[in-house]
Amino acid sequence: MKAINKDLQLDDAATPSLRDGEVLVKVAAAGVNRADLMQAAGKYPPPEGEPEIMGLECAGVIADPGTTDRKEGEQVGCLLAGGGYAEYVAVPEGQLTPIPQGLTLEETAGVVEVACTVWSNLGMVAGIQEGDRVLIHGGAGGIGSFAIQLCKAMGCEVAVTAGSAEKLEYCRQLGADVLINYKEQDFAEELPGWADAILDVVGGPYLEQNIKALNTDGHLIVIAVQGGPKGTLSLGRMMPRRLSVTATTLRARPRPMKAAIVASTVEHVWPLLESGAITPNISQRFPLADAKKAHEHLDSGKNTGKILLTVS
Amino acid sequence: MKAINKDLQLDDAATPSLRDGEVLVKVAAAGVNRADLMQAAGKYPPPEGEPEIMGLECAGVIADPGTTDRKEGEQVGCLLAGGGYAEYVAVPEGQLTPIPQGLTLEETAGVVEVACTVWSNLGMVAGIQEGDRVLIHGGAGGIGSFAIQLCKAMGCEVAVTAGSAEKLEYCRQLGADVLINYKEQDFAEELPGWADAILDVVGGPYLEQNIKALNTDGHLIVIAVQGGPKGTLSLGRMMPRRLSVTATTLRARPRPMKAAIVASTVEHVWPLLESGAITPNISQRFPLADAKKAHEHLDSGKNTGKILLTVS
Repeated sequence: MKAINKDLQLDDAATPSLRDGEVLVKVAAAGVNRADLMQAAGKYPPPEGEPEIMGLECAGVIADPGTTDRKEGEQVGCLLAGGGYAEYVAVPEGQLTPIPQGLTLEETAGVVEVACTVWSNLGMVAGIQEGDRVLIHGGAGGIGSFAIQLCKAMGCEVAVTAGSAEKLEYCRQLGADVLINYKEQDFAEELPGWADAILDVVGGPYLEQNIKALNTDGHLIVIAVQGGPKGTLSLGRMMPRRLSVTATTLRARPRPMKAAIVASTVEHVWPLLESGAITPNISQRFPLADAKKAHEHLDSGKNTGKILLTVS
Repeated sequence: MKAINKDLQLDDAATPSLRDGEVLVKVAAAGVNRADLMQAAGKYPPPEGEPEIMGLECAGVIADPGTTDRKEGEQVGCLLAGGGYAEYVAVPEGQLTPIPQGLTLEETAGVVEVACTVWSNLGMVAGIQEGDRVLIHGGAGGIGSFAIQLCKAMGCEVAVTAGSAEKLEYCRQLGADVLINYKEQDFAEELPGWADAILDVVGGPYLEQNIKALNTDGHLIVIAVQGGPKGTLSLGRMMPRRLSVTATTLRARPRPMKAAIVASTVEHVWPLLESGAITPNISQRFPLADAKKAHEHLDSGKNTGKILLTVS
């Protein structure tokens, strides 16, 4: 088969052989994520035993059901530990999703990873409920824009940070209630004690401000450390307000945990995709062979929405 | 009535008047806690609307059931936001416990606060289960010695830190499996990636080591910051292992939350007190009038076990 190699060139690769419980999926489209850029730069190696090929999500058609009861020809979305930038990928059955009614295969390819990331953290870890207040950093990004829609669909009040008036306007259109330009305002001063949950991608440099912005019993969840990995934690401030900090990644989780996340995400988020409460936003499509161009486009920082590689 | 005043002297005080849902308890004995020392030093004021009198736990007999369906003369344990160093105290009904079968009123007075503190954190927040590995700092203290017994009764493996061979031997007798003298050993080097849950009273200075000592999906719970309130948090280390940090206090919680904690503690911990799996350890009794001596004894650091004030 053809696949994208480490140098981001289309190359020959061995078609994956199936392990017990895996199906072979003929890839229709694969999502491009920031983590792929890190992997291409050699900074985010795949977990042990997982493919070297990039690509954390895709959608396609089952070409070989292996030992499972799935049917050849079934259309599926796939949460991957790697391997999506290819014509075929082996996927543990627990990491398959149905195609949400009304969505295309391409739209599904671009929504699996973000949906599982946002739901596993805000839904399963922070346990957000109707009426909660959620602060989302980087609201205009792929994770942020999905999180805004999810939180609004669940009846939460949403504050976002972003770095320009245009990005904040985009967040407002997605439903965000409170807009903070982090270049002009300190979110902790704007929203002291406000947030029941915070979804953060900045990490260390935001840690003290995030603690200040949390409400009693609030939960900070860090899913990326784009600003730096370390920060100062004020445990003394946290105690009387019973605050929690959790840091997670999706990719490193063992397969049974991923299967549980996929099942919970399909249960809680797929209906919101089918009702239109959350709409996928595909900004650009590139043929698989142009993966390098797709990465350059994402890396430019000018992109709003999801970038896809189309395969077959 | 008589009560201990801010200067730790026995003094006249107004007998508490009951608010809706409160009962008046004639105090038989009250537990002495480290937090009381802080309050006496002016560093730990009571929550708004709660008594100025010290004392976070007691046991006694209902003298006036107020608007509740309780009976006059019923023996009860009491989790208090304050007021235990007195002949009478007003207690919200949700903060009453039964006397565990086989325990005296005095033993109950010394066990309510520690049981609710340990269970609310290890049981309700960290969710420890049979087979989990739990690291307990200050294993020989009041919290630590109770936590060791609870964890062993639940089938956990237990590691402790303490500052002397004598204290570690005491922890071993209570059931601790791994003994670490923090003056001679670095617990993070001894137990890298070991703990599913850590119960910490040191705070800032232990934060980086605690993160190193946590197992994947592990949870650090900080309930005191005796070493300092701030530390460095390595979010980058936490992400791939999905670690959580929670800091809590019991006293500042609103009454409905305290009632939920008391109910869960009575459900899960009282049977372990009744079976003898957890045994209260009363080291010293002082008459109420000698509260100052009781504080000096606790402050000396030589005490192992619970100090009680006996009232009636």
